[in-house]
Amino acid sequence: MSGAQVAIVYGSPNDAEVMGKAKPVLDRFGVTYTEAAISAHRAPRVLVQWLGELEADGLKVVIAGAGLSAALPGVVAAHTPLPVVGVPLKGGAMDGLDSLLSIAQMPPNVPVACVGLGNSANAALLAVQMLALSDDRLAKELRDYKTELEQAARDGLKK
Amino acid sequence: MSGAQVAIVYGSPNDAEVMGKAKPVLDRFGVTYTEAAISAHRAPRVLVQWLGELEADGLKVVIAGAGLSAALPGVVAAHTPLPVVGVPLKGGAMDGLDSLLSIAQMPPNVPVACVGLGNSANAALLAVQMLALSDDRLAKELRDYKTELEQAARDGLKK
Amino acid sequence: MSGAQVAIVYGSPNDAEVMGKAKPVLDRFGVTYTEAAISAHRAPRVLVQWLGELEADGLKVVIAGAGLSAALPGVVAAHTPLPVVGVPLKGGAMDGLDSLLSIAQMPPNVPVACVGLGNSANAALLAVQMLALSDDRLAKELRDYKTELEQAARDGLKK
Amino acid sequence: MSGAQVAIVYGSPNDAEVMGKAKPVLDRFGVTYTEAAISAHRAPRVLVQWLGELEADGLKVVIAGAGLSAALPGVVAAHTPLPVVGVPLKGGAMDGLDSLLSIAQMPPNVPVACVGLGNSANAALLAVQMLALSDDRLAKELRDYKTELEQAARDGLKK
Amino acid sequence: MSGAQVAIVYGSPNDAEVMGKAKPVLDRFGVTYTEAAISAHRAPRVLVQWLGELEADGLKVVIAGAGLSAALPGVVAAHTPLPVVGVPLKGGAMDGLDSLLSIAQMPPNVPVACVGLGNSANAALLAVQMLALSDDRLAKELRDYKTELEQAARDGLKK
Amino acid sequence: MSGAQVAIVYGSPNDAEVMGKAKPVLDRFGVTYTEAAISAHRAPRVLVQWLGELEADGLKVVIAGAGLSAALPGVVAAHTPLPVVGVPLKGGAMDGLDSLLSIAQMPPNVPVACVGLGNSANAALLAVQMLALSDDRLAKELRDYKTELEQAARDGLKK
Amino acid sequence: MSGAQVAIVYGSPNDAEVMGKAKPVLDRFGVTYTEAAISAHRAPRVLVQWLGELEADGLKVVIAGAGLSAALPGVVAAHTPLPVVGVPLKGGAMDGLDSLLSIAQMPPNVPVACVGLGNSANAALLAVQMLALSDDRLAKELRDYKTELEQAARDGLKK
Amino acid sequence: MSGAQVAIVYGSPNDAEVMGKAKPVLDRFGVTYTEAAISAHRAPRVLVQWLGELEADGLKVVIAGAGLSAALPGVVAAHTPLPVVGVPLKGGAMDGLDSLLSIAQMPPNVPVACVGLGNSANAALLAVQMLALSDDRLAKELRDYKTELEQAARDGLKK
Repeated sequence: MSGAQVAIVYGSPNDAEVMGKAKPVLDRFGVTYTEAAISAHRAPRVLVQWLGELEADGLKVVIAGAGLSAALPGVVAAHTPLPVVGVPLKGGAMDGLDSLLSIAQMPPNVPVACVGLGNSANAALLAVQMLALSDDRLAKELRDYKTELEQAARDGLKK
Repeated sequence: MSGAQVAIVYGSPNDAEVMGKAKPVLDRFGVTYTEAAISAHRAPRVLVQWLGELEADGLKVVIAGAGLSAALPGVVAAHTPLPVVGVPLKGGAMDGLDSLLSIAQMPPNVPVACVGLGNSANAALLAVQMLALSDDRLAKELRDYKTELEQAARDGLKK
Repeated sequence: MSGAQVAIVYGSPNDAEVMGKAKPVLDRFGVTYTEAAISAHRAPRVLVQWLGELEADGLKVVIAGAGLSAALPGVVAAHTPLPVVGVPLKGGAMDGLDSLLSIAQMPPNVPVACVGLGNSANAALLAVQMLALSDDRLAKELRDYKTELEQAARDGLKK
Repeated sequence: MSGAQVAIVYGSPNDAEVMGKAKPVLDRFGVTYTEAAISAHRAPRVLVQWLGELEADGLKVVIAGAGLSAALPGVVAAHTPLPVVGVPLKGGAMDGLDSLLSIAQMPPNVPVACVGLGNSANAALLAVQMLALSDDRLAKELRDYKTELEQAARDGLKK
Repeated sequence: MSGAQVAIVYGSPNDAEVMGKAKPVLDRFGVTYTEAAISAHRAPRVLVQWLGELEADGLKVVIAGAGLSAALPGVVAAHTPLPVVGVPLKGGAMDGLDSLLSIAQMPPNVPVACVGLGNSANAALLAVQMLALSDDRLAKELRDYKTELEQAARDGLKK
Repeated sequence: MSGAQVAIVYGSPNDAEVMGKAKPVLDRFGVTYTEAAISAHRAPRVLVQWLGELEADGLKVVIAGAGLSAALPGVVAAHTPLPVVGVPLKGGAMDGLDSLLSIAQMPPNVPVACVGLGNSANAALLAVQMLALSDDRLAKELRDYKTELEQAARDGLKK
Repeated sequence: MSGAQVAIVYGSPNDAEVMGKAKPVLDRFGVTYTEAAISAHRAPRVLVQWLGELEADGLKVVIAGAGLSAALPGVVAAHTPLPVVGVPLKGGAMDGLDSLLSIAQMPPNVPVACVGLGNSANAALLAVQMLALSDDRLAKELRDYKTELEQAARDGLKK
Repeated sequence: MSGAQVAIVYGSPNDAEVMGKAKPVLDRFGVTYTEAAISAHRAPRVLVQWLGELEADGLKVVIAGAGLSAALPGVVAAHTPLPVVGVPLKGGAMDGLDSLLSIAQMPPNVPVACVGLGNSANAALLAVQMLALSDDRLAKELRDYKTELEQAARDGLKK
């Protein structure tokens, strides 16, 4: 677990599959990560302790996914000065509008970077963009990535 | 502060007025309370410490008001086995739908009793109902209260 | 039926399964309950009579589940000074937003404690929390319960 | 109060102004009415008794206005076989979406005729339409009314 | 088609099944009806002509179901002084919120009696209630119907 | 009135101000128009007759504004093969969500071109774009218009 | 690709099926079209270049479908003075409310003609209506089309 | 303008006031910035050119505010590999729900970090957090900032 650049956390093991879509993106860019299921409501002290240990080991960005009242990203942001990316999840009700509003509408002084419903892959890409601000290799790979996306569209037109 | 039966807490001094409508209700029933503005996001450790001291002093029920992503009631519920009444507040956006959904849609194992938008008076009455379960005086006063409401309606018809 | 601490009521036998998730929670904490399907709209007099008999027998808390316009919890709260926990149910339309707003947005003087959509288990836990205010055994078991939740999260991290 | 064809009822004296817009419509068509502020939540027994007395005196249609969780029209419909017209009111929160959904989404077997937010004038017109089914004078006046609306539009075009 | 008391109309043959739930209710009360699928948008003149013929034959109430922008009930109400009951239908998008708002939010002077999503059975019952205002047999049967609903609830409790 | 290229119609004189913002746009491009307040619900026959006369006189595009249940644009589209631009208006409730959904969610075979809430200026521009398909002067002016918008942004940067 | 009157564009190959429903409508009216999947977000330069080439070849109308944040129709409208019809698509979340609001709520000066969720057939019909403004054959066929719709309703009544 | 670490951009000069709340936050942390009003819809080429020049000069993070269909943040993200923070703005309609959904619900491969409605101050803080990942001074100041927030809450309790 030590030395991970990105931490992926979510409230329930049920969220592992959706949140797991962050991992191939981080792998592609060679970014290291760790992952845990810890509920901000059922185990708040475990969450804070886990977070503190990761920070001590060099953590850079947290990706936190949550459904329903979706407090997890905000609770993480309350305890760390690191940037936190929140991923709203559909929790079986309200089609995820509840979690999206919870995560986006943070109070003054404690931001969370909210992405789209269940879009942990975009959360990972956002984390890579942040890390790339001080990593030339990542910055170059992100530029290449955008070029590839564009080329794929161009190729698609020829068919 | 010691010995209060009910704690009223909210995230910002701006919420004091709306949340203050709980106090005349508690006063009417002779229920003691304390009050504080502590943000779950800006000062999570202060919140938990304050809550622990109140519990040690005999606290029974927490009334927690919050707007926007409205994590406060859930964070309180995460740290105490006491019943928590959540009051969603209008925070200048979304007409309070964001806070209402955040407070009502708690995950398994950690309930919050959500009342209507800005309805701290009803939250106080709910707290009184809980205390009345083991307080014969309160139980009698609540019955009288309902009789008075009915009588007022009957009187209103005569006009 | 006599002597139940908690009454579970809902408008239609179709709601029995979702509302039944309250029962293992009450069983775990050794809280007694009774259960009935009575519509506030189709059989209002039956509902009020049933409620009155339970109160005479020592009822403490009512858990009322309802979908669509979801008047049941409020009608119960209109007739009893006991605390009422409302469980909004998805009724095949509007994803339950209709019932959640109906239950949460009660008028002045008559509170209902609203929990999340279909979350009768949390409603049961809230009822236990209320009963624990005057029951040392329950209070201790709730504290243990929170410790177990935390320990489960800690154990999950080790895997 | 005796002999009114239409009863107008709402939960709070604050609703009197909005609901009062039903009266000029009923006056115009010579339909008699009575009016009362009785909360379904604060005074349920008073409401049922009042309703029963009116029915004994020949009541035909009930217009019930309510905001927030808006149970009043449904509670009236639960106790009478007469047609009930529900008027959702804006109660200071949610822009009235809460009350509109509560009133429109009634369960099987107990209908309420929901009109637009605060549109007590349309509720009155609907009541007149119902009464006109067995009243030739009213039927003629309604036809004339529609002709007048059309003529007004035609006149407006000439300007 | 001649002599029907109630007309059931909807915009598309796809709506026939949901709207058909009105028919057993009307049958039970011995109310006659006719039925047609005519879109207010695709065949406005056909709709108006059909409606006019029914009125000439003694039509009393129209039940109009519509999804999406759901103009049908309002267009019917524009052309007839008879009471119109609107049934919002789920049209594959927005969960029916779009049609419910369209039908409930009518402009001044032209009311529609909106019922719940897809609830054509309640629409039929509302039509019966209107007809019962001048039909003693129907009035008695509606009272019996309410007694039966109550008795069914009472019987359910004994199990 | 004769010979107008564009007709602007809305349901109530109250809408004249918001809908009037279409006129300077049409004036700027030298497009002729006529304007009327005719409710689709209060005066459906007047509306259809007015529309027919305009079509006979060479009408090309209709801009129809409506609030609440907002049937007007769809009713116009039902009666003419010309393109219809619908402008949802805020009608005092639901913040216009009701009218926007009514106008956008048209059934198969009868399209309406919905623009933003109250955005009659954009509706006018859309009408101009349609007319420009067969009018070289308009096509050139639209290109110039876009260049001006861009130049204004460029000038703004220099400040 | 050269010479198409209508361009159909959408952000992802996944949208091809829903957007493809535009094609039989255009075919029926003998309107030529081309089609491409180009994301406004992943390949903005490809999109603009493709659009420019089509304009040079005589393009008249663009139909652009998009889900989620649904910027595509607006980006197209930003780069061309031609009329743009936007088709909001359901993207697996929010039931399409997100895309519908994105497409309908365009800023001043840059209109998009929004149709219903997934209703690419109506988008095509709207495009035909625009082209018919300067094409007598199309204008006649649209009138015939409306007559057929009406006749089909009339025939349906006879069954 | 050269050398700014953060670019603040919004579509209209009307947004300058709300977006300006980002500036004191950036000033407090000694982060340099530049600012412009450029609409993604009215001046797309100006926007892309401006962005390219800033990137060449060492830009690190973009804060983009937008109302209504709110394409600006996404269009910026389409053209740069830098992290983009999107600020949804209330545009006079829909209470900002339209812009929040547009900004949060980005498609795969092109993330935007969405913050709360009008919360440009939190957007600025998020930008500072990103920059602090490779700037020890900023990292220390962010830790101090969180300590100050906590201390302020503690001081508030003493009053």
